[in-house]
Amino acid sequence: MTSSPSYLSLAISMLIISLSSSNLFDYYVTKWSRVGAAEAVAAIIPCSGHGRAYLEYGLVLNGHEPVCECNPCYSGSDCSKFSSHCAADAGSGDPYFMEPFWMRHAASSAVLVSGWYRMGYTYNDESYISQLLVNHIKKLHETVGNAVTDGRYIIFGGGSTQLLNAAVYALSSNNNSSDTPAKVVATAPYYPLYRTQTELFNSRDYRYEGDTSLWKNNTDNDTTFIEFVTSPTNPEGKLTKAVLEGPNVKTINDRAYYWPHFTPLPSSADDDLMLFTISKFTGHAGTRFGWAIIKDKGVYEKMLTYLDLTTVGVSREAQLRTLKILNVILEEGDGKEIFQFGYSTMRDRWIRLKQIISKSKRFSLQKLSPQYCTFFKRVRDPSPAYAWLKCEREEDKNCYEILKAAGINGHEGSTYSGDDRYVRLSLIRSQDDFDILINKLTNFLSSEAY
Amino acid sequence: MTSSPSYLSLAISMLIISLSSSNLFDYYVTKWSRVGAAEAVAAIIPCSGHGRAYLEYGLVLNGHEPVCECNPCYSGSDCSKFSSHCAADAGSGDPYFMEPFWMRHAASSAVLVSGWYRMGYTYNDESYISQLLVNHIKKLHETVGNAVTDGRYIIFGGGSTQLLNAAVYALSSNNNSSDTPAKVVATAPYYPLYRTQTELFNSRDYRYEGDTSLWKNNTDNDTTFIEFVTSPTNPEGKLTKAVLEGPNVKTINDRAYYWPHFTPLPSSADDDLMLFTISKFTGHAGTRFGWAIIKDKGVYEKMLTYLDLTTVGVSREAQLRTLKILNVILEEGDGKEIFQFGYSTMRDRWIRLKQIISKSKRFSLQKLSPQYCTFFKRVRDPSPAYAWLKCEREEDKNCYEILKAAGINGHEGSTYSGDDRYVRLSLIRSQDDFDILINKLTNFLSSEAY
Repeated sequence: MTSSPSYLSLAISMLIISLSSSNLFDYYVTKWSRVGAAEAVAAIIPCSGHGRAYLEYGLVLNGHEPVCECNPCYSGSDCSKFSSHCAADAGSGDPYFMEPFWMRHAASSAVLVSGWYRMGYTYNDESYISQLLVNHIKKLHETVGNAVTDGRYIIFGGGSTQLLNAAVYALSSNNNSSDTPAKVVATAPYYPLYRTQTELFNSRDYRYEGDTSLWKNNTDNDTTFIEFVTSPTNPEGKLTKAVLEGPNVKTINDRAYYWPHFTPLPSSADDDLMLFTISKFTGHAGTRFGWAIIKDKGVYEKMLTYLDLTTVGVSREAQLRTLKILNVILEEGDGKEIFQFGYSTMRDRWIRLKQIISKSKRFSLQKLSPQYCTFFKRVRDPSPAYAWLKCEREEDKNCYEILKAAGINGHEGSTYSGDDRYVRLSLIRSQDDFDILINKLTNFLSSEAY
Repeated sequence: MTSSPSYLSLAISMLIISLSSSNLFDYYVTKWSRVGAAEAVAAIIPCSGHGRAYLEYGLVLNGHEPVCECNPCYSGSDCSKFSSHCAADAGSGDPYFMEPFWMRHAASSAVLVSGWYRMGYTYNDESYISQLLVNHIKKLHETVGNAVTDGRYIIFGGGSTQLLNAAVYALSSNNNSSDTPAKVVATAPYYPLYRTQTELFNSRDYRYEGDTSLWKNNTDNDTTFIEFVTSPTNPEGKLTKAVLEGPNVKTINDRAYYWPHFTPLPSSADDDLMLFTISKFTGHAGTRFGWAIIKDKGVYEKMLTYLDLTTVGVSREAQLRTLKILNVILEEGDGKEIFQFGYSTMRDRWIRLKQIISKSKRFSLQKLSPQYCTFFKRVRDPSPAYAWLKCEREEDKNCYEILKAAGINGHEGSTYSGDDRYVRLSLIRSQDDFDILINKLTNFLSSEAY
C-alpha cells in the first residue's frame, strides 16, 4: 500500500511519455488519462481481501494516502488483522454480497463525471427524470420478467425510501372524506420504515393504524385504507398478496426483493403501484436510487409533485451511475450473469445456514420451499435475503439477547412488529460477515451440545 | 461531430499500443484509460459553443452517437441554428452561468466512479455523511468568511430543498403546546417553495400562515413561530434579517445566495440554523446537494432523523462529486478563482441590464448599492442573481404578460407572493440566454421609443 503514490506517478509519466504528439486531442487524452490512472491504483490496493480503498482518499484528493476501509472484525492499514473476539454483524441490510460482482466488472461499470456534467435542474425534456434511464428500466423488467411496464408511468426517488411516503401522500390525497385520515397498515412482521416514516410526517391526511389483521373485515366505506404489501416479505422472504379488500383499499407494493437473487418469480408483477430499488438488486444501497411503476395517471402526477417539491428529483449523478450499472447488466453476459451470481451466492448461504441450524433444536428458520421460477425456467431452491430465526426454548423469550451473548448481532423481532422470540439475521452482507456469522453459530451450537 | 467514434477508436488504440508491457498494473491502466479516452471525446465535441454533449449518449453507452443538447433558441445536430423568433428564457434559476468555469477545469474536477464504489449504506463511521466532505465545507466557509462553523453540527440534504422541511419538522416538534401547530411564515416577495412544501405535508405540527407582516406584533406565547429568512433574498437580492421577535420565534436562514458571486459579505453569518446549497454556489443544481449548519444539538438530531427516515441520507455519488468540486475550488487558484469568475460574470450582467432599463421609464429594477465586502476586502458593485423588474405604467398591471408579448419569459410576481406588476428575470442562466434576454429587451424598448 505504501508504494501506491509511486505507482501513480509512474502511471502518469508513462501515459504522458507515450502520448507524444501535440494536437488538441492528444492533450485531452493525456489529461483524462491521469484520472484513469488514479483509479487504476485504487484497483490494485487489495486491502487483503477484507476491505476496500475508495477513491476519496489519495486519489480524488491530492496529498492524501489511500486508506483501506475494513470489513467488521478486520483491522490494520491493510485489513489483515482479524479479531476472533469480535461479534458477527448480521444486522443491517448493507448489500455487500454483490461487491465481488462489481469488482469483477470494475472498469466496464465505471463512469467518469466531468466538472461540467448536467449542472442544470432538468434534462433536455424539461423533466428531472432521465428518459434514457426509464427506457433501461423497462428493458430490464422485460428481460427479467418481474414487472409489467407497458403503458405504465415510471418515476424515480431517493431509494424506494422516498417513494414510500410519496405513494402514501398520493394515495391519501385521493381521499374523499377530508375529515377522516387514510389508514396506513401493514402485516407483521414488516419493514419498520412503513410505520416510522408515516408517523414522522404526522399528517392530517393519513395515519399509521397498525396491523392489517385489525382491519380485515372492517374496511368501512368512509375511510381510505393504504396497505403496504411487501413481496417477498422483509424479514421472512415469503411471496404475499394484499390482505384487505374493498373499494377504498389501495396498495403500495414494495418489490425491493422481487429479483431472482432472492425469490422464485411466479409471474410478472402487475400491481397498481410497485416500488423497486437498486439497493437489493445491484447492491448499490449508497446510490439512493429507487423507482415506482404506476398505473394511474392521477397517482403518478401527485407522486411527481411530491418528488419535485421535496428534493427536486433525484441526484443526476445517481441517475447516471444507475444507467451505467443497468447498461452493464443488460449488455454483458446476456442480461443473466448478475442473477446467476446473486442467486448462487444467496442459495449457498441459505444452505450453509440451514445445515447448521438443523443440527440443533435450539433454533429454527422460516419455512421456504423450492418453487418454479419463470426467469430460470426451472424449480429453484430458496435463497432469502434474511433469516427469521426463532429461539425454540420456552425460556428464551428474547432471542436477540441469546444471540448477542453468543457474539451475534441481529435485529430484534419487535423491530419488525414481530415477536422477540425471533431475530432477523442479514444474509446479504459481505462474505466475511457471513463467514463470521456461520462460525459463531457453529461454536455456540457445538458448545451447547456438550 | 460525426467523426467522433473514430476519434474514440483512435484514442483507445493509441493507449493500448503505447502501454506495451504486460504486468497487472499496465493491464489496469489500459482498461481505465479507455474510460478517460471516452471522456476526452466528449470534451472535443463543441456543439458550436451553444450546447454540450453529455456522456450518457455514445460514451457511457456503447453504440450510441454523442448528442448535442442545445441552449434555448439553438438547434441542429451541432446547435449551430439560431432562431431569432424564439422567446428569451429568463425563467428558472438553472445556474449555467458557472458552466464555462467548470469546462475550463474539466479534467481536474472530474471523478471516476467504479462499479464497486461505496455500495453500503454507511461511511466508515456508520453515518450517512462523509466527514471528509464536512471538513471541506468547514474549510470552505473559513476561506470565504460567509458562515461560522466552529462547534456547529453539519448535515446534508437533497439540495437545500430537502433541508427546508427537515428544519420545519425539527423546529416544530420542539413545540410544547401540541394542540397548536407551529406557524410557518416568510416575508414577501419570497421563494415559493417555503409555502408549497409546507402545505404539501399538511402536518398536524405546523401550518403555513402567510406573510410575517401579519404577525409582527402578534407573536403570542402559546404558539411557536418558524420564520424563513432569506439573505440575500430571492428574488430581490437584498440582505435581510428576521422580522419577528420573541421567545417562541425560531428562524430558518436560507443562505443559498450568500456567496461573493451575488452579494457583498458584511460578516460571517452566525444564525442558529443556516441552509446552503451548491446549486447557486458552484452551479451544480442537478447534483441535489445542500447542507445545514446547526447550533442546537437537539435540532440537529431531529433533522438527522428526518433525513435518515425520508431518504437514508444523500446519494454517495453526489457527496463524492461535491467533495471533488470543493477540493478544486480550495486547491486551485488560492480558493478565490471561482468567486472572481462568479462575481465578474454577475456584475457584468447587472451593468448591461441596468444600462438598458435606465434608457426608458417603462421598467425599473430593484435598488442595490455598492457595499463593503469582507471577502474582496473592498467596496463592490451589486451582482444579484435575479432582476425584480417592475412595469411602471399604471395600466401594466400584469408585467409578466407585457414581457411575454415582447418575447421574454420570466416568472410572475405573484409566484413570489409579490405584486404582478413585478416579474423575476433569472440572470444566472447561460450566456446565450442572457444575451437573448438583453437583445429582446433592447428591441422592445427601442420599438417603444418610436
